[in-house]
Amino acid sequence: MKLTLAEPRFLKESIIIISDLVSEGRFRITKDAIQLIAMDPANVAMVLFKMLSSSFTEYKLEKEVDIGVNLNSLKQVLRRSGPSDLISLEFDTQNKLKVQLKGRATRTFSLPLIELEEKEQKVPELKFPVKIMAPSEVLNDAIADADIVGESVSFIAETGRFTVKAESELNQATIDISEDENTKVTLEDGSKFRSKYSIEYLKKMINGSKIADSVAINFSTDYPLRLDYVAIDRVSLSFILAPRVDND
Amino acid sequence: MKLTLAEPRFLKESIIIISDLVSEGRFRITKDAIQLIAMDPANVAMVLFKMLSSSFTEYKLEKEVDIGVNLNSLKQVLRRSGPSDLISLEFDTQNKLKVQLKGRATRTFSLPLIELEEKEQKVPELKFPVKIMAPSEVLNDAIADADIVGESVSFIAETGRFTVKAESELNQATIDISEDENTKVTLEDGSKFRSKYSIEYLKKMINGSKIADSVAINFSTDYPLRLDYVAIDRVSLSFILAPRVDND
Amino acid sequence: MKLTLAEPRFLKESIIIISDLVSEGRFRITKDAIQLIAMDPANVAMVLFKMLSSSFTEYKLEKEVDIGVNLNSLKQVLRRSGPSDLISLEFDTQNKLKVQLKGRATRTFSLPLIELEEKEQKVPELKFPVKIMAPSEVLNDAIADADIVGESVSFIAETGRFTVKAESELNQATIDISEDENTKVTLEDGSKFRSKYSIEYLKKMINGSKIADSVAINFSTDYPLRLDYVAIDRVSLSFILAPRVDND
Repeated sequence: MKLTLAEPRFLKESIIIISDLVSEGRFRITKDAIQLIAMDPANVAMVLFKMLSSSFTEYKLEKEVDIGVNLNSLKQVLRRSGPSDLISLEFDTQNKLKVQLKGRATRTFSLPLIELEEKEQKVPELKFPVKIMAPSEVLNDAIADADIVGESVSFIAETGRFTVKAESELNQATIDISEDENTKVTLEDGSKFRSKYSIEYLKKMINGSKIADSVAINFSTDYPLRLDYVAIDRVSLSFILAPRVDND
Repeated sequence: MKLTLAEPRFLKESIIIISDLVSEGRFRITKDAIQLIAMDPANVAMVLFKMLSSSFTEYKLEKEVDIGVNLNSLKQVLRRSGPSDLISLEFDTQNKLKVQLKGRATRTFSLPLIELEEKEQKVPELKFPVKIMAPSEVLNDAIADADIVGESVSFIAETGRFTVKAESELNQATIDISEDENTKVTLEDGSKFRSKYSIEYLKKMINGSKIADSVAINFSTDYPLRLDYVAIDRVSLSFILAPRVDND
Repeated sequence: MKLTLAEPRFLKESIIIISDLVSEGRFRITKDAIQLIAMDPANVAMVLFKMLSSSFTEYKLEKEVDIGVNLNSLKQVLRRSGPSDLISLEFDTQNKLKVQLKGRATRTFSLPLIELEEKEQKVPELKFPVKIMAPSEVLNDAIADADIVGESVSFIAETGRFTVKAESELNQATIDISEDENTKVTLEDGSKFRSKYSIEYLKKMINGSKIADSVAINFSTDYPLRLDYVAIDRVSLSFILAPRVDND
């Protein structure tokens, strides 16, 4: 196997974001893409990452493989890549992942593959009656706004409008996002949908804005959230987040 | 009451600076201005803030009001404003302060008003025989210079010249600031005036340089200091600082 | 004695770098240069600093002197200098070092001279069969690359090629630096040379890149390393680092 990227950015940013949620991951490498599906240790969030073979300038693969990697180690290596470095990923003979960065010098890092006990994660089948397309920055701002008030945030969708709310004992924040040329709210029917999510997790997920300028926000009432960041023909990074259900 | 600002900067920077010295404050809102006078918890420093109604694009006020606000909460909200956001301040029905930031989204924060036990602070009547006008950056540099040497600083004024001095057991720093086109030293008579102040407090106060490019430095021998930062027709931010008197 | 510099940069950067390795130092001031030779407290590294009198716009010296200075205090003072400040160094009557920074204000710092017990450090006589000239940034990158893997690094020189290697129990990094227009590998004979050094020390030494765009890397097998950063006609900053010899 030898895969080469002319532009480190998408792989580098994706792994930096993912390793903030999960520390180990299993990459499935097929002739079409590199894929990773991983659950966070608390079983609250899931990451779905896919990088298409068309992103690579070289994509040699004898047979499909699954490789387990420590994502923190991989992140540290990718962080060392400059914007114009060539990156290649290879197996060497000792069952290691070789990551090579080629710039002024040629830098080769060798990372041990790790055995992952659990079976491959299954992506849950989810149906979302709500889909909001918005500039990534608008969601980033809304989460940062909510963060000064509370630990969880309510997402509320109704015709033509998406609202993000947070409240603590004392303070409240309401962020109203209306439809415009860059923001579309699509609802299955005219109802109002509302669900609550953890801000701590959302703060990690919205870093997907480094991959894509817009985000698809899918959810339903008291139901998981799915955020999709897509760079067409290159990479998609999605997150699924369990809702917070109040007992009071 | 509804007050709207087209340019968040002055309010945002002022509240950030003030909240570094006092955590709660009483705003008096009259037809002419928003004013705040507050004493720091250690009774060493006083803040005088005034934002003229002419700074606002909308200034609807039924009657004069006093409102007590947690300045840290207000700071956190104002920090979330972008440079071109519209900011409006309103009372809502539940005796809360509503701060609305309008950019791509409309973000509404609701902060509880707090009851302030103490009566309104009185500004002490002070007479200053020394007044120095200097670029804010010159004072900032002098305080940063002195900070590497000691915990307090002596301000010394004499004809044509302002000197800032600090000393520790071992090291000494002397900063000589002479009159020039941007720096004027005005003395009531030809004497030499000298007083000592806490660097810790001064470091917070000189952030007034974010409001104004020049500062008025008023003091007298073993007497309080008053710093004035003024953005004409908009905002003035002043600080009064008690002198440090050595017992040795 | 009075020495004046029109450009603070070289002195400022040098002292910042040196004070990261040694906290006190003895400057020998002769008619040709200011020199400092110092050993780090652990006796692992040595610093050789020389600033030529030609760097100065004024260089008045009655007789050669040795002065002991706390380098952290001197660093703090020099850090306060702006890029266009005039810096002068003087003795005052009380056996103090007076450092004056002249910009918009005139700032005078007075630092006590310290008595250094030990005799002047001798620079060991070393013979280096390997000399590599490389862009400073290439060495900086190699050390930062190695730093994510281990605590020590092997330098390996062979004909036409310089390699930096690090390994931990699990991970490995190999940085291959080939000869090109900016990189030259000079060997005394055709052998291969190899030695190991502490990354912790190297990370401090490579800050010499702030003084010079290229670095001379001198070493031999299981032998000290010497790095030379030279700004012609102005300043040279060299470091000697003991090798790490494995016992296993």
